[in-house]
Amino acid sequence: MQNDLVAALDVGGTKIAAGLVDTDGRIHLRVRRPTPAREDAETVMDAVTAVLGELRGSPLWTRVSAVGIGSAGPVDASAGTVSPVNVPGWRAFPLVERVRLTTGELPVELIGDGAAMAAAEHWQGAARGCRDALCMVVSTGVGGGLIIGGRLHPGPTGNAGHIGHISVDLDGDLCPCGGRGCVERIASGPNIARRALANGWRPGPGGDTSAAAVAAAARAGDPAAVASFERAARALAAGIAATAGLVEIETAVVGGGVAGAGDVLFVPLRRALREYATLSFVRGLTVVPALMGTDAGLVGAAAAALPARPEEPAAIAAGRP
Amino acid sequence: MQNDLVAALDVGGTKIAAGLVDTDGRIHLRVRRPTPAREDAETVMDAVTAVLGELRGSPLWTRVSAVGIGSAGPVDASAGTVSPVNVPGWRAFPLVERVRLTTGELPVELIGDGAAMAAAEHWQGAARGCRDALCMVVSTGVGGGLIIGGRLHPGPTGNAGHIGHISVDLDGDLCPCGGRGCVERIASGPNIARRALANGWRPGPGGDTSAAAVAAAARAGDPAAVASFERAARALAAGIAATAGLVEIETAVVGGGVAGAGDVLFVPLRRALREYATLSFVRGLTVVPALMGTDAGLVGAAAAALPARPEEPAAIAAGRP
Repeated sequence: MQNDLVAALDVGGTKIAAGLVDTDGRIHLRVRRPTPAREDAETVMDAVTAVLGELRGSPLWTRVSAVGIGSAGPVDASAGTVSPVNVPGWRAFPLVERVRLTTGELPVELIGDGAAMAAAEHWQGAARGCRDALCMVVSTGVGGGLIIGGRLHPGPTGNAGHIGHISVDLDGDLCPCGGRGCVERIASGPNIARRALANGWRPGPGGDTSAAAVAAAARAGDPAAVASFERAARALAAGIAATAGLVEIETAVVGGGVAGAGDVLFVPLRRALREYATLSFVRGLTVVPALMGTDAGLVGAAAAALPARPEEPAAIAAGRP
Repeated sequence: MQNDLVAALDVGGTKIAAGLVDTDGRIHLRVRRPTPAREDAETVMDAVTAVLGELRGSPLWTRVSAVGIGSAGPVDASAGTVSPVNVPGWRAFPLVERVRLTTGELPVELIGDGAAMAAAEHWQGAARGCRDALCMVVSTGVGGGLIIGGRLHPGPTGNAGHIGHISVDLDGDLCPCGGRGCVERIASGPNIARRALANGWRPGPGGDTSAAAVAAAARAGDPAAVASFERAARALAAGIAATAGLVEIETAVVGGGVAGAGDVLFVPLRRALREYATLSFVRGLTVVPALMGTDAGLVGAAAAALPARPEEPAAIAAGRP
């Protein structure tokens, strides 16, 4: 039973979670704290050190062989630094080096949260057994990660799969990232709600203007709500089709709060995909809901720190048939 | 000197070329025929068999260790078949099996022409030494291929890097592929000329309406010609930025006839790229002209058939830093 656990750290703009994950993907110990996202760099780091300290206090800690970190991005895996958009106190913050102060000599792997979600879905979720897949989160933002040749492709800096900020509408609205017509600018939850409101949808008496409320209205037939989800679906379809044309994927896994809309999103998404994924080698592409839920961050961070699994020999990893 | 050559075959809609290529990328023997593109499947195959027969007739043939095929797409490398858009007689044509009738027991590798161009630029041209790159041809169509982790990423079917048919304008004009707002629909040579003409550009007395003529007019300051290249540049920039966000590339290599426009294309392309490639990990992306010219098809087909080169150990190929 020695060295069969990985310490996983999931750093987001809202919460910092940590856990001990075994080689079957089971989480044995789980701790979390709110992210003090508006505080200075050291206050945020104190929260990370605190959750890691709780893990170290467990008798299971002696079985830990590696540390995996998934962080809100952008990250720079080669430098070991993170600059989460929603944690302004951290800019090129040396998270790997600082985590090592707590975890000692253990190897540490850092990836972006999109890559972590993809690693989790590939290991334990909807992309299990897939050779080539895009896994994405559609929520307050839109993120993602790529499985290529049977394994995670984090890219040199850990940010690959960043589908939220590819432009599918080159003359479209300016995005906070500086680009135009990004997938996120059209398909994120807040943009779905914004567009529905602008086109005449009115929230219920509770005043709930979330994407979930728009989804409920769409299910009830509200035309502005339906149209807003259809527009989001077109943007997602164009982005997924682009990914398929560029790297050849067999499956797109879609998770996050907006995916919780179910058929309101997936029916127009699959319809739009037939319009944009037209070439012979991408026509078989399937779109499926994610399975890992909120555990994806921890499980994916753990996956990144585990050694290559037996079903991933080098020949597959190298992309050879 | 034994077994140091590869037989390379480059099948396009206009010509079929073949050559013997050494392990340094030098072409020792080169033969070509026009593609009888409007003829039936067997007539096209006869032309392939003829060029291969010329290679076999050479005393150098005894040194050949493998056969590499780059073909106009779509191809299906896993099935060994090709369905070139501009050769209607070939649909799921078993090119690999048919080539083997001439080349015997030698191993045969098939990739798409975009992947072949990328392999050539990575081996001998503008992407030499790059770990992650997109190489593209902007000509009558727009094609491309990807280098990921220091080696060619053809994808399971050999079509990866298909940047010409990703949508950068989801409400845009219908493309012959069935999609909308594809990069090719905006940035190919014929579309550059079409848009310039529609906006008031008038060709010279010779009536030349090629993209090269539009480029000459743009250099002379014709506003419709300048604007048409700028529009093409924006579409290419959005596509290149999307590729960078999805797979992390450090360089985009642009070749083909339209790239011959030089600054008329590259200046607005680099400017537009700053608008679309905004995230920290893609901002350093460079765009450079291709170097391999018309040899790219043969050299790239040869590269696909060569064993992995020493500078490409498995750890790099697997995408690990």
